[in-house]
Amino acid sequence: MARIVMKFGGTSMAGTERIRRVARIVQRQQAAGHEVAVVVSAMAGETDRLVNFCREANPLYDPAEYDVVVASGEQVTSGLLAMHLQALGCKARSWLGWQLPIHTDDAHSKARIEGIDSEALLASMGAGEIAVIPGFQGLTADNRVTTLGRGGSDTSAVAVAAAVKADRCDIYTDVDGVYTTDPRIVAKARKLKNVTYEEMLELASVGSKVLQTRSVSLAMKEGVRVQVLSSFIDDDAPAADTIPGTMIVSDEELEGLDMERQLITGIAADKNEAKVTLTRIADRPGAVAAIFGPLAAANINVDMIIQNIAKDKGETDVTFTVPISDLARTQALLEERKDTIGYYRMLANSKVAKISVVGVGMRSHAGVASTMFRALADRGINIQAITTSEIKVSVLIDEDETELAVRVLHTAYGLDGE
Amino acid sequence: MARIVMKFGGTSMAGTERIRRVARIVQRQQAAGHEVAVVVSAMAGETDRLVNFCREANPLYDPAEYDVVVASGEQVTSGLLAMHLQALGCKARSWLGWQLPIHTDDAHSKARIEGIDSEALLASMGAGEIAVIPGFQGLTADNRVTTLGRGGSDTSAVAVAAAVKADRCDIYTDVDGVYTTDPRIVAKARKLKNVTYEEMLELASVGSKVLQTRSVSLAMKEGVRVQVLSSFIDDDAPAADTIPGTMIVSDEELEGLDMERQLITGIAADKNEAKVTLTRIADRPGAVAAIFGPLAAANINVDMIIQNIAKDKGETDVTFTVPISDLARTQALLEERKDTIGYYRMLANSKVAKISVVGVGMRSHAGVASTMFRALADRGINIQAITTSEIKVSVLIDEDETELAVRVLHTAYGLDGE
Repeated sequence: MARIVMKFGGTSMAGTERIRRVARIVQRQQAAGHEVAVVVSAMAGETDRLVNFCREANPLYDPAEYDVVVASGEQVTSGLLAMHLQALGCKARSWLGWQLPIHTDDAHSKARIEGIDSEALLASMGAGEIAVIPGFQGLTADNRVTTLGRGGSDTSAVAVAAAVKADRCDIYTDVDGVYTTDPRIVAKARKLKNVTYEEMLELASVGSKVLQTRSVSLAMKEGVRVQVLSSFIDDDAPAADTIPGTMIVSDEELEGLDMERQLITGIAADKNEAKVTLTRIADRPGAVAAIFGPLAAANINVDMIIQNIAKDKGETDVTFTVPISDLARTQALLEERKDTIGYYRMLANSKVAKISVVGVGMRSHAGVASTMFRALADRGINIQAITTSEIKVSVLIDEDETELAVRVLHTAYGLDGE
Repeated sequence: MARIVMKFGGTSMAGTERIRRVARIVQRQQAAGHEVAVVVSAMAGETDRLVNFCREANPLYDPAEYDVVVASGEQVTSGLLAMHLQALGCKARSWLGWQLPIHTDDAHSKARIEGIDSEALLASMGAGEIAVIPGFQGLTADNRVTTLGRGGSDTSAVAVAAAVKADRCDIYTDVDGVYTTDPRIVAKARKLKNVTYEEMLELASVGSKVLQTRSVSLAMKEGVRVQVLSSFIDDDAPAADTIPGTMIVSDEELEGLDMERQLITGIAADKNEAKVTLTRIADRPGAVAAIFGPLAAANINVDMIIQNIAKDKGETDVTFTVPISDLARTQALLEERKDTIGYYRMLANSKVAKISVVGVGMRSHAGVASTMFRALADRGINIQAITTSEIKVSVLIDEDETELAVRVLHTAYGLDGE
């Protein structure tokens, strides 16, 4: 017998038939002898509908009242799933964010979970009752509703799993696991049995939108074993234990599970970055700080940074990337500071893609980066920028070459399946 | 300066433009110097949508989970109205049922309010903040969400008004007050300045669907002055104080307000009753109990009862009315007990209407009933049954003659306006 937290997203909860299907998947886990808690999202489209009402009410809406409005979507689906489970003969009840409670800070609309009171929850689960918990929502110290920000339900699920010391947190999504790369780009992409938290963080943050990054960080911090699997499995399929998706585990657990692992775990492509270049900046101390200080203050997340070798006159070009959604603000901020920074021209290009190869194996192996550069060069793909971390090498290329580059690298690192 | 509770129904809260209009009406009351709390319903149609999800989930749904689901509709509108008020520059915040809390018993889906903690609410209102409170919802002693039953928001408003000792509870509806009768039937119907609680109870329970009966009972018990007025007043109209609807008050207050009041206050028609006749019942002790005991046990509300004079063989006919919605159940229950009761035939007729004349003035005047019988007889309208109370006389007639009877009586009692 294990204690399991299951999480279902908005697509899985969109309407009576789908919730009934979710109820059957949950029932199967309980029938297999497990203690079960379920974390649910709002019906697909519902949160957008509610957010829209808020924007119409007041473009500068009060985030505390926004939270009151949008938290209702998950309240509805948690009550409905409890009813569907009861219709199948299970004992079940909903536990709203304020009932447990799920304690958060008071950063309304993007709150962070500080702790979950698990005593009543554990007693209920221990008595054979399936606990249904709305994701996304929490409670401040002064008794007001909070939400965790879009996609926060993954984080809720991991936090509940940590609070009840679950053996596993199963995140049901519209994919059946984490792949070596996007199967829509590379038909030969393989589903991974295991990835480490750090690999998952790198893969998620560069575009494999399977899990919210924050939930993976929390799972890593709390040591929660997370499994990604499909909610569109056949109704008659056996319990999830026997049709595993991808398990996200610690480095240590991975070593025990998978000695013969590939050097590279996966390849991710991200088209959501834009490249900005400032030309002919004075090559002196403080110049770079004058650029990036204001961006940091404006909460703009700068990713890659390249400073070219200084040219004749003590001048240099600086190139960096920001999310496309922040490009306009970035340009406005730097335009304002043109004289302070002292650059000649600002160039922007959003037609770029960041391609990353990720794998914990590269820690102990040299040559990963040079394999990448050679494979891309052989196909005439030009590299505009490079960054590396301990378990990742990323390059910036022309957006039009994204799919080609992913396929070339997938083959170069021997990831192609049958 | 007064302390005022305002209540807006689902039609007034249906969508951004209408909520904005409500916000302006509320703002005007605050601008007039009043302390204001607002109680809101869910958007029109929303509760039906949620109830439907519950029925689809499980026809025998758990009322505790039903409450979790359907209470969300009022949560949404209370958050949105707070935002709209803030957009107009008012200070405002929502207070959910569990936040105040509004204490109820644990009769889920039809809970009764036991009390409201008003300390925080009064402090907030005293500081110039408009309190926005979702109607319809409450909290049990063991911290679970309840709802008060359909139309419960009127009751919430009156309960809040009692808790904060409001000077007035203004119920905004899609009519602009209580009329001597339905203006769609009698063009010369007049809007009443004042009615007493008891008159309103009689008028409401026989079909003037302006206010929920329960809310009027509560207002009478707690001595809350309730005003019914239209939410479709012009945006530029002055504050509600100067365009009164109908004020519902105690007998004592009425005497001070309206010495020269008509004998009869209003005339109501109700087509929602059905007539059942059991023929040739043995005229012996216990026969009537055998009929009405099972109906009471099944929570079927029997209204008029007529037992004919016993005929030759010690047999009698019994006729009574039940709500049309309970007719099928009534027939099934009595069919089952045919032998026990010992009747010959059961006849049912849902093509009947109950016409009532109501007025506190009739307490001290004889002849009200005979005026009614004579006026109806003069137009050839046949009376099938009669009941009376201290302030009401009701007759059962053929449904086709409803409008004619109401017009005849409106004239007969001198209620026609200009």
